[in-house]
Amino acid sequence: MSQAVQETYKQVSGELYAEVRTFYAWQMRRVDALDIEGFAATFVEDGKVVHAGGHVQNGREEMLAGMRAALPRYRDIAVRHWFDHLLIETDPADEDVLRVSYYSLVTQTDREGNVKFEPTFTVEDELVRRGGSLFTRTRTIHRDTPVELPA
Amino acid sequence: MSQAVQETYKQVSGELYAEVRTFYAWQMRRVDALDIEGFAATFVEDGKVVHAGGHVQNGREEMLAGMRAALPRYRDIAVRHWFDHLLIETDPADEDVLRVSYYSLVTQTDREGNVKFEPTFTVEDELVRRGGSLFTRTRTIHRDTPVELPA
Amino acid sequence: MSQAVQETYKQVSGELYAEVRTFYAWQMRRVDALDIEGFAATFVEDGKVVHAGGHVQNGREEMLAGMRAALPRYRDIAVRHWFDHLLIETDPADEDVLRVSYYSLVTQTDREGNVKFEPTFTVEDELVRRGGSLFTRTRTIHRDTPVELPA
Repeated sequence: MSQAVQETYKQVSGELYAEVRTFYAWQMRRVDALDIEGFAATFVEDGKVVHAGGHVQNGREEMLAGMRAALPRYRDIAVRHWFDHLLIETDPADEDVLRVSYYSLVTQTDREGNVKFEPTFTVEDELVRRGGSLFTRTRTIHRDTPVELPA
Repeated sequence: MSQAVQETYKQVSGELYAEVRTFYAWQMRRVDALDIEGFAATFVEDGKVVHAGGHVQNGREEMLAGMRAALPRYRDIAVRHWFDHLLIETDPADEDVLRVSYYSLVTQTDREGNVKFEPTFTVEDELVRRGGSLFTRTRTIHRDTPVELPA
Repeated sequence: MSQAVQETYKQVSGELYAEVRTFYAWQMRRVDALDIEGFAATFVEDGKVVHAGGHVQNGREEMLAGMRAALPRYRDIAVRHWFDHLLIETDPADEDVLRVSYYSLVTQTDREGNVKFEPTFTVEDELVRRGGSLFTRTRTIHRDTPVELPA
């Protein structure tokens, strides 16, 4: 399974839930606007992204280079990232460190209005709160794959 | 870009987040049930909708007429509006005025169960709280379009 | 109409909203992981599911048998359930009983990454809180169907 296995869920306060959802609403507006500098700024300086294929980007500079190289893919499409089913856990040792996992669906709408979908993903983030704002420290992206069933 | 440009995001309380999400859950049930009177009643009397093509509906009566005319389009489909990534800001001068933006995905399911998608949209609303309930005062609908990249 | 008709919406606290969303985030991870025992454990022992076609499963044992029989359908697909527009009401007589309705969209991603969609659904749940955790007591699944319009 691509998703983290947990025994049960931790309860989360209404304040924290709204804070995290608002952070992602902001972060996804940046990436979907192809505002790659604005998106990189939602990560800590030495933030890390582990892509579904295993490729790792270390630090904002590597992230920016990777996103710049990928920009031509979005020349004629409007991309939107949709999130759902957030599970949020605060680090027991540090309330400014959060572990969050969520479902992600990505739409690509072309100029004629046709909508295509990327494969679905499950994402695991570590967020840190600095000066009252959240930033992503690590992001691990898992492409959703079929569960292996007994033969 | 079709979406509002902001410098950063405003934090929102858990109470407000839940209130706004519940309002939209209710409002979308009305429109998806083709309960056009019930939907219009979720707007203030002089509410305004600016559609993606630029067409403007002023006041509930114009909204009702427009929706009535559009009803035949939904004769054999079940339409559902899906929202995500809400950004909510309270007017600093009036806590009963909210500015909300969100992503919107629209599914159309036919009688055989086939699902089609409208182009994705980003919506900007001004909501007002009256007697403890939210109403939409203005809605501006932006169709998501590709970002213009340097040649 | 397949969805419950209500006169208006009840306000919900930020705490309750986050609690319910977190419960579903957990429950859907279980079903999407095909962890049928883990999923059944999110229902009360005598929980009941009324499927869209009218078929009823009474109690965890019947649910488990039904899910076991359905497993081969998911041999080569990754299924994900997406929820939106929750309406949450607390039973006035018992704050540990909740009535929740929500939209549900189901994606099926195959090994090549192609995404297919099941028809959309609206679900009505009765949840109960026991020992601080939520469980589903009854689930009624409605397939979304076109609204009948006057000829």
